[in-house]
Amino acid sequence: MKDTSPEALDAAVRAAHEAFRTGRLADLSTRASWLEAIAEGLAHDARALVATADRETSLGRPRLESELRRSVFQLQLFADEIRRGEHLDATIDHADPAWGMGPRPDLRRVNQPLGVVGVFGASNFPFAFSVMGGDSASALAAGCSVVHKAHEAHPDLAEQTAQTVTAALESVGAPAGLFSLVAGRSAGERLVDHPLVKAIGFTGSTAGGRALLERAQSRSEPIPFYGELGSINAVFVTAAAWQQRWETILKEYVGSFTLGMGQFCTKPGLLFIPATGGEELRRLLLGSLDGFAPTRLLSSGLLEGYRRAVTDVGGRSEVDVLVEGTFAPEPAPTVLHTTSASVLADPELLRREMFGPASLVVEYDDESQLSALARLLEGQLTTTLQAEAGEAPAELVDILTGISGRVLWNGWPTGVTVSYAQHHGGPYPATTSNTTSVGTAAIRRFLRPVSYQSFPTDLLPEPLRDDNPWGVPQRIDGSWHNSAQAVHV
Amino acid sequence: MKDTSPEALDAAVRAAHEAFRTGRLADLSTRASWLEAIAEGLAHDARALVATADRETSLGRPRLESELRRSVFQLQLFADEIRRGEHLDATIDHADPAWGMGPRPDLRRVNQPLGVVGVFGASNFPFAFSVMGGDSASALAAGCSVVHKAHEAHPDLAEQTAQTVTAALESVGAPAGLFSLVAGRSAGERLVDHPLVKAIGFTGSTAGGRALLERAQSRSEPIPFYGELGSINAVFVTAAAWQQRWETILKEYVGSFTLGMGQFCTKPGLLFIPATGGEELRRLLLGSLDGFAPTRLLSSGLLEGYRRAVTDVGGRSEVDVLVEGTFAPEPAPTVLHTTSASVLADPELLRREMFGPASLVVEYDDESQLSALARLLEGQLTTTLQAEAGEAPAELVDILTGISGRVLWNGWPTGVTVSYAQHHGGPYPATTSNTTSVGTAAIRRFLRPVSYQSFPTDLLPEPLRDDNPWGVPQRIDGSWHNSAQAVHV
Repeated sequence: MKDTSPEALDAAVRAAHEAFRTGRLADLSTRASWLEAIAEGLAHDARALVATADRETSLGRPRLESELRRSVFQLQLFADEIRRGEHLDATIDHADPAWGMGPRPDLRRVNQPLGVVGVFGASNFPFAFSVMGGDSASALAAGCSVVHKAHEAHPDLAEQTAQTVTAALESVGAPAGLFSLVAGRSAGERLVDHPLVKAIGFTGSTAGGRALLERAQSRSEPIPFYGELGSINAVFVTAAAWQQRWETILKEYVGSFTLGMGQFCTKPGLLFIPATGGEELRRLLLGSLDGFAPTRLLSSGLLEGYRRAVTDVGGRSEVDVLVEGTFAPEPAPTVLHTTSASVLADPELLRREMFGPASLVVEYDDESQLSALARLLEGQLTTTLQAEAGEAPAELVDILTGISGRVLWNGWPTGVTVSYAQHHGGPYPATTSNTTSVGTAAIRRFLRPVSYQSFPTDLLPEPLRDDNPWGVPQRIDGSWHNSAQAVHV
Repeated sequence: MKDTSPEALDAAVRAAHEAFRTGRLADLSTRASWLEAIAEGLAHDARALVATADRETSLGRPRLESELRRSVFQLQLFADEIRRGEHLDATIDHADPAWGMGPRPDLRRVNQPLGVVGVFGASNFPFAFSVMGGDSASALAAGCSVVHKAHEAHPDLAEQTAQTVTAALESVGAPAGLFSLVAGRSAGERLVDHPLVKAIGFTGSTAGGRALLERAQSRSEPIPFYGELGSINAVFVTAAAWQQRWETILKEYVGSFTLGMGQFCTKPGLLFIPATGGEELRRLLLGSLDGFAPTRLLSSGLLEGYRRAVTDVGGRSEVDVLVEGTFAPEPAPTVLHTTSASVLADPELLRREMFGPASLVVEYDDESQLSALARLLEGQLTTTLQAEAGEAPAELVDILTGISGRVLWNGWPTGVTVSYAQHHGGPYPATTSNTTSVGTAAIRRFLRPVSYQSFPTDLLPEPLRDDNPWGVPQRIDGSWHNSAQAVHV
């Protein structure tokens, strides 16, 4: 697909703005049907889409099929969610002459969509974080329109997916321009700059994301930049857990950090374990890697970044190579090794993401060091505790809560379910805002509240009317009334 | 009060961080009791605080008393709100092997406080947007600690209020350092830069706010900057409303834009009315202003900014002076006047805030112009429609929704109630984020979600436990269960 010209980019954004203006007036059920039509279209075209994805990436059909299934499910879940009206946060304060600070007028608040959203596709999820991935799906669910900047790692898939999406939207009468595709670095920058664009969704590198964040913030009208950047995803193993099941832990660790060739934002890039025998550790890691068949990384740029990161970290005098990998186009995994004393002296060792099949094992002398080690970490999408039942490392959990978006107990961070309670985000540099890019809560990123004071009923948005024609949850004078889903305690 | 040294600023932030670390573990009822203790302290010291405020500002005792009452009420309302646990957004997804995209682990999400919050006091609300105003109250309610940068317009009041607050917190055993006061421009900048500060609340000018926004965003770890900057608060009068009650409208308009000497962020700075007789208009405005006794503006800097803004707008060839005011320290109000043709040719006329007792009347030729005029406006805290019952200007309401935080029907924007449905914010430059600085929803600014995956019950935060020991609302597998407040439909 060729780069989008400045004129074509402007036309796409203007069309998206017009589609937003008409589309935002659609009722929840109509909007939900648009998401469902896209889901059906993707499911219908699954075979052809996966074939193209398989040609353009080396992720393999099983993974690609499951990723597409996830994307379809996500659209259906978001359709259900907006039908409930949960995301509107409809709040009604009736006039109250006896209100504590003085008479209160009738005041009603509802969430409204932001407008045109620019979404940047990611290389590592050709479906779930690309053309019709989480950012696009949640922006459409919110009532926004989307201009999507294709990732150059899978251009044919981007075009093909966009055709499926556009055809699906057209088939159910959604406004033309509600979704469109653009390509090229310059088009991406113009997208961030365009005055009619009201928010950006981004998944990618810390350097690229930071540059776009600054671009979005230096506009004459700054806009929210929802960026998911980098994360190391540290895993902490207690002495008891290590003693009980170190072989299992190492096996699962290898499985998680090599999954998808380590090209996950949730790849465990750090493993803290008790001081142990280096040789035995090496033997078990090699055993777990035995028979592992590397595949191509997603792009040559990514391979080069991977080589540089692993060489930088591995080249430090205090780091040794436990399992020597390669930097071939299909690189064999690398495991680096250091000690708690080294990272306490040089915390930067814990802050370098190696995006690809590499990870750093840190041996600690004493479990009491774990809190101090955790305090050295920057913001994380995830952190994980491997511990035994009955262990209660409350201080460590408290520290991990402070730096993480998701904390796992005896699991592995790769594999991110799309659900109501999911939070995929974390303190910077994990994300650039305190929001999630996965799960139903992602929809809220593309909404903003508006209050209506003393409005006549027929001019109020439906979710704010006393007769609640859409049957959405309403907080009335402080108490929730969940009409759509009767709740009894 | 003298400027805070760099060392003292650092000590205040570090103490606040320690207070946060212990304070965030308090249960909701304990934290609510801290807010209530502050409310009691302020109410107890009201007479002395109002006396100092009256000496340092020219706002007058009745206004200051009501503003303090509002601040006390706000703390009590926030205490009630956090007791309910509404702000935690507790969400529980039980493990589900049949989940549509593949087996779902047990996943639970709750909002956690951000950490130390830096709050900048405003000149124009010595109580409600200053030391213990909305930003401080909502940050404490969220479980954060606060370092407050005093506004130089009322330094003695700042110190006195901080003493009341600190004594109140101490009396109920809140952690030392939970709230502290700093002063001086340099201390304010260091506060924004300090790595332990995790968010900023700000109310003030667009220029000052923008500079601090950029400062907050250019940190190595960017932090949220919740700034409430400028707003013009346009009022649109339909032909029918004008015909029915133009005398009342003008009288109320004058009352609203001169209230508190026009030193409100919600002052109506623009009035759109049908083309009418200039002389009659002038006569009525003068009549409404008859007997108005100007008082001093809050600071000489504010007076100078006011003079410059009014002179700039009033000096344009297409603008004439309907009511000539003064730029004395106690300035007589000014009303400027222009036409829809002029502002359609030069929209910048609609974008200059004149903070003080001045406003611009724009006469339109035809009501059908109102939509086009509304589209010229930047983001607003409020917009207002003055219309007759039965009128249904749906297009205009739609446009106002797109640019406003609050839309009023037959009211006046000054006077902002603190309630559940309030939204005091709007597209830039009204605010720098899609959040509110007034009302219970303001608490959410200082929280971020954290998910816990497959966690043992006793290590989960109380709001996420199946037995719900704190009785907070929980969304369980998609449906809300409001234990604290049984809801039946």
